[in-house]
Amino acid sequence: VLVGFGRVGRRVGEALHAEGQPLLVIEQQRDHLEELRALGIETILGNATREDLLAAANVAHARALLVAIPDAIEAGRIVHATREHNPGIEIIARAHTDSGVLHLETQGANRVVMGERELARSMLAML
Amino acid sequence: VLVGFGRVGRRVGEALHAEGQPLLVIEQQRDHLEELRALGIETILGNATREDLLAAANVAHARALLVAIPDAIEAGRIVHATREHNPGIEIIARAHTDSGVLHLETQGANRVVMGERELARSMLAML
Repeated sequence: VLVGFGRVGRRVGEALHAEGQPLLVIEQQRDHLEELRALGIETILGNATREDLLAAANVAHARALLVAIPDAIEAGRIVHATREHNPGIEIIARAHTDSGVLHLETQGANRVVMGERELARSMLAML
Repeated sequence: VLVGFGRVGRRVGEALHAEGQPLLVIEQQRDHLEELRALGIETILGNATREDLLAAANVAHARALLVAIPDAIEAGRIVHATREHNPGIEIIARAHTDSGVLHLETQGANRVVMGERELARSMLAML
């Protein structure tokens, strides 16, 4: 299950879909819906902080949840609710700050990616 | 030579310094200067778009230029001037958008890292 099909989520979703991985996207912007439909990716329209949407996405039986939205507070609520539904699910989330990373980990994320850290890592890897 | 010791540049600089790589940082904020001094990293204070600063940093004989500032227009000017001083230098820069990536490559960067792309790549690698 992938939450968010914006600038980061789109890249993640397209890569997983191209690999033939089973994928469900929760996206709240109608604009992105057509693109998802054109790609043939199963989509639920709405805000993933709504528990009925997480239930409809069947997070209780999903292998992984990828939270690719930029808002760490919303992301934290989604991570927390998903962790309650499924103690064993792999949760990977996204943050902008060190406090965002800590918040998402506290809410139940297994791994958190952080923009500045990943950029620095990539620059060093290119040297 | 590293330009910028902010959220990305700091991580890059600290890693290179810890590896014992010869490093010169150009940074325009006085706030970061004390931190750089405490680490024992050689620093030039000022805006790297000034050609005299690039000359003082001896980019003509440096092995690599890492541009870690968020402003793609300033970064482009620094990349362009450095490429003129040194056709063989490895230039790695940072952008926020696809057009920023293209701009920096056009100005002479060998490689450009982009936040959203690196985040997506990291999320996929963690799965």
